[in-house]
Amino acid sequence: MKQGFGRNENLNEKHNEKYNEKYSEKYSDKQAEKSGGKKSNAVKIIPLGGLEHIGMNMTVIEYEDTMIVIDCGLMFPGEDMLGIDLVIPDVTYLKNNLDKLKGFVITHGHEDHIGALPYVLKDVNAPVYGTKLTVALIENKLKEHNLLKTTKRKVVKHGQSINLGCFRIEFIKTNHSIADACALAIFTPAGTILHTGDFKIDYTPVFGEPADLQRFAELGKKGVLAMMCDSTNAMRPGFTMSERTVGKTFDGIFAEHKNSRIIVATFASNVDRVQQVINSAYKYGRKVVIEGRSMVNVIGTASELGYINIPDGTLIDIENLRNYTPEQTVIITTGSQGESLAALSRMASSLHKKVTILPTDVVIMSSTPIPGNEKAVARVINELSMKGAEVISQDTHVSGHACQEEIKLMYSLVHPKYALPVHGEYRHLMAQKNIAESMGIPKENIMIMASGDVVEVSEDGICQAGRVQAGSVLVDGLGVGDVGNIVLRDRQNLAQNGIIVVVLTLERYTNQLLAGPDIVSRGFVYVREAESLMEEAKAVVDAALGECLEHHVSDWSKIKNVIRDSLSEFLWRKMKRNPMILPIIMEV
Amino acid sequence: MKQGFGRNENLNEKHNEKYNEKYSEKYSDKQAEKSGGKKSNAVKIIPLGGLEHIGMNMTVIEYEDTMIVIDCGLMFPGEDMLGIDLVIPDVTYLKNNLDKLKGFVITHGHEDHIGALPYVLKDVNAPVYGTKLTVALIENKLKEHNLLKTTKRKVVKHGQSINLGCFRIEFIKTNHSIADACALAIFTPAGTILHTGDFKIDYTPVFGEPADLQRFAELGKKGVLAMMCDSTNAMRPGFTMSERTVGKTFDGIFAEHKNSRIIVATFASNVDRVQQVINSAYKYGRKVVIEGRSMVNVIGTASELGYINIPDGTLIDIENLRNYTPEQTVIITTGSQGESLAALSRMASSLHKKVTILPTDVVIMSSTPIPGNEKAVARVINELSMKGAEVISQDTHVSGHACQEEIKLMYSLVHPKYALPVHGEYRHLMAQKNIAESMGIPKENIMIMASGDVVEVSEDGICQAGRVQAGSVLVDGLGVGDVGNIVLRDRQNLAQNGIIVVVLTLERYTNQLLAGPDIVSRGFVYVREAESLMEEAKAVVDAALGECLEHHVSDWSKIKNVIRDSLSEFLWRKMKRNPMILPIIMEV
Repeated sequence: MKQGFGRNENLNEKHNEKYNEKYSEKYSDKQAEKSGGKKSNAVKIIPLGGLEHIGMNMTVIEYEDTMIVIDCGLMFPGEDMLGIDLVIPDVTYLKNNLDKLKGFVITHGHEDHIGALPYVLKDVNAPVYGTKLTVALIENKLKEHNLLKTTKRKVVKHGQSINLGCFRIEFIKTNHSIADACALAIFTPAGTILHTGDFKIDYTPVFGEPADLQRFAELGKKGVLAMMCDSTNAMRPGFTMSERTVGKTFDGIFAEHKNSRIIVATFASNVDRVQQVINSAYKYGRKVVIEGRSMVNVIGTASELGYINIPDGTLIDIENLRNYTPEQTVIITTGSQGESLAALSRMASSLHKKVTILPTDVVIMSSTPIPGNEKAVARVINELSMKGAEVISQDTHVSGHACQEEIKLMYSLVHPKYALPVHGEYRHLMAQKNIAESMGIPKENIMIMASGDVVEVSEDGICQAGRVQAGSVLVDGLGVGDVGNIVLRDRQNLAQNGIIVVVLTLERYTNQLLAGPDIVSRGFVYVREAESLMEEAKAVVDAALGECLEHHVSDWSKIKNVIRDSLSEFLWRKMKRNPMILPIIMEV
Repeated sequence: MKQGFGRNENLNEKHNEKYNEKYSEKYSDKQAEKSGGKKSNAVKIIPLGGLEHIGMNMTVIEYEDTMIVIDCGLMFPGEDMLGIDLVIPDVTYLKNNLDKLKGFVITHGHEDHIGALPYVLKDVNAPVYGTKLTVALIENKLKEHNLLKTTKRKVVKHGQSINLGCFRIEFIKTNHSIADACALAIFTPAGTILHTGDFKIDYTPVFGEPADLQRFAELGKKGVLAMMCDSTNAMRPGFTMSERTVGKTFDGIFAEHKNSRIIVATFASNVDRVQQVINSAYKYGRKVVIEGRSMVNVIGTASELGYINIPDGTLIDIENLRNYTPEQTVIITTGSQGESLAALSRMASSLHKKVTILPTDVVIMSSTPIPGNEKAVARVINELSMKGAEVISQDTHVSGHACQEEIKLMYSLVHPKYALPVHGEYRHLMAQKNIAESMGIPKENIMIMASGDVVEVSEDGICQAGRVQAGSVLVDGLGVGDVGNIVLRDRQNLAQNGIIVVVLTLERYTNQLLAGPDIVSRGFVYVREAESLMEEAKAVVDAALGECLEHHVSDWSKIKNVIRDSLSEFLWRKMKRNPMILPIIMEV
């Protein structure tokens, strides 16, 4: 469905013409010519996370000596990143441009937008700007990392602007699954860049105002150079339902299950969701327990700041649960994604110290599984069902992201010259590209950016003008960046097949065998079941080593290779397995 | 919605009365009394896979000296079963009752129903019975495992019965996502047991007849003691669409994309799906390539046996693709579940030797992701999108399993006295339990069985009468059962944190340190990044060892423990990591 935009049609036609042939390199040449061989007038947009690193949201906006960073998120490790706790962006580019960097501007307080801050700030100290709840959640993290004193923060209100270098940045109200979410309008000398952040449009939000559509329209009217818009739900038709619809479902469930305890699992950060559970609980005269570390933290912060309204006497401590009958209580808990250490999982598998699932319990799963978590969620539901609990997940969640019609609305209001879809996998970005096209943005004005791409945008055009270092840094325990591809490959090999260590002691100079070779294995085979196999393996090593010594091979790495190869060949032939083989030679 | 069943209502009421109090143990006593202290008249139903082992479908039906086994499936390993290729059932119970075992009766040819046969038959040789395609697919497996000569097979037609011991077993036509699926009616001295197998009801199947509803009705009329019914889709309302609806979608896509090559990914075993792609291809004058090992195998077998109809000249060899323009061809391939080694994944990541994805390609994903595969499927779709291909997955798949209305239909026709929901996770079995109740089966006549449960059923009642050995056996490479919990735990530890090997050589008798301690690590940390850490670690080991030797500790296991503990404590304190620590002492 193509839609025209009266005001801009001529502009678009002009652009369509201009870009009818592929411009890319050609364009930058033209631009360079025009500006006397020196590229300028363009603002640079450089994603340092994003597409290849879903969750690691971080975008640099740069113009001459001014650089700001939008968001600083972390990614949870993929299943091939064995043993890794977190993944954060490689910020070498920021380190190399510390003098330009004016600050971090944050759209909202989710982990994939603020989680990497405490790690990044250690190397790249710059002020952090965000709305009240966002900054408070960031401060919780800074406290944990002992960074409160060294980090400048500033709370910005919706509608307010800040000046950073030659940029003015305006924080615009949007709706999302966490309160205080913003879009950012960045007024640069090259034009206005609009970043929607994660957003949906909720005309009847639980807390605060609907998204500031008038302001988006006003900006659009004045002319927006480029829009970076949330693509998460770009494959979903229609309009994301209002958060309030979930409240209605809750009321219905509470009305229907007056004789059961109700347990609600949801995202800790979804303060409005928690508010709605509390509303229903209050309406039906139940006491509320908040359980799970991050739930307690976030709700504590939200409550202090006035983002959640808890009627006096509604909240009780988990220790006091025993003073009430089950049907007088509601437990709001973490673990809606099946996270194995979260409170709900521990309740489901009888590992929770203070809550035992009753056969009369009703458990509301108030979230949908994030891709990859489906099996874990199913496991928790199965465990709860086995204990007799009724698990409800119908109509108990709405997304925090804009579906196709909302994305169209945003394009309709803002009608940017250039569209740079962000947030989502490639297929989601492609879906937004299609939407943008259907809304009249010329194909060649839409660009899908990869991490590290330097995209230059100006009224004259858009082009990819080089690349900077970007990528991911792995965090394992306290180590940041000390686990790389080699270590991960080793872990994968160890995970699949285990390890066989072959040790032997040789006499210095004479290379005479003094002890061993001994074979020790871990994660390879249950040795008592495979005694004869291990004996055969030892014979293979004995023979290989004997051969080496007989031929006076004195190069240890050669001896190790011969041992490794012969043992490896034997095990593959015999068992079709490929354990890591680690020969160690000691010298006496 | 409760429904009455005229004929059986009195019976049910009687039963309701009888079981108003929990019977379980009590009941078996009563029964034992009645039969003079000897339990009898009951048929035993013993799942050796199932609930705890989704996919490992295997159920023993036993009456005095007659024992048969329904299905013999394998399970694909969970993500915690590192390095494991397959999981098969523990058949100790069968081994201990070889004299009774009359044969395996197989409902259909899917891996989760036949996959463990070649492993199990090596220990438990008994004849195998199934319909034509099922037996042919089993024979493909037996051939690979060199078991063709030693395994008796018999092809049974739909509607036919076989006699095994005191049982008569009738194979009844059903519909499923593979041709030749059956339900099994087992006529035992204690009554008729009906096992639906995996089924749906397709009034307009692509190949063959609809499910034999008349026969189910007839059996129901005569009285069915117990029904084991497929629960896979018991949580889904409505009716599963006919396979033919997918054919219509295919026709639409072919009509719309006349200028593109079309690639269709689906399950190799879904012969009817492949038939429909071929139909559309033929209609639009395209040549068809079949790609992917299992696809070639299954379609080869199905074609030989006449289960698929390929017009002459339609099929071409993959080598001949180059002789046609892209829009003249269709490629039917494996990999619809994102399996990393399957043909589609290899095409998507440019690793396929014979097919290169073109920006004009249209890829039809003709399956929905099995829980756990969502991320892998998304990865393949993203890779295909990046290469410019259009990926279509809307309305391109229907399930092979009965939804709620079909399950109700089955209960309505068969109206068994007892319901034993099978196939599915606990929540699915619970969902079927609810359906069965809504269809008038008394609550206490419905039982959810766990692996190894011995369930005794007769006209007089149902009870769990003990347990037998059951569980899973892990297959890794050529090893069956030589990887157990200890090995898996080691692999998990290795996967998460890697290993540190500490080796040292001591002099016999004097316990003097001759060499080492040397520290070698794998999968722990990138050593060049952590040189000082490794030096500190060595100092910790040196100190611990020095302490031991100074105090003349001669017990090696004690020395090893001291080394392990001190190093482990150091690494946790320093890095919050827990690698496996393996001290090895050599003696000279």
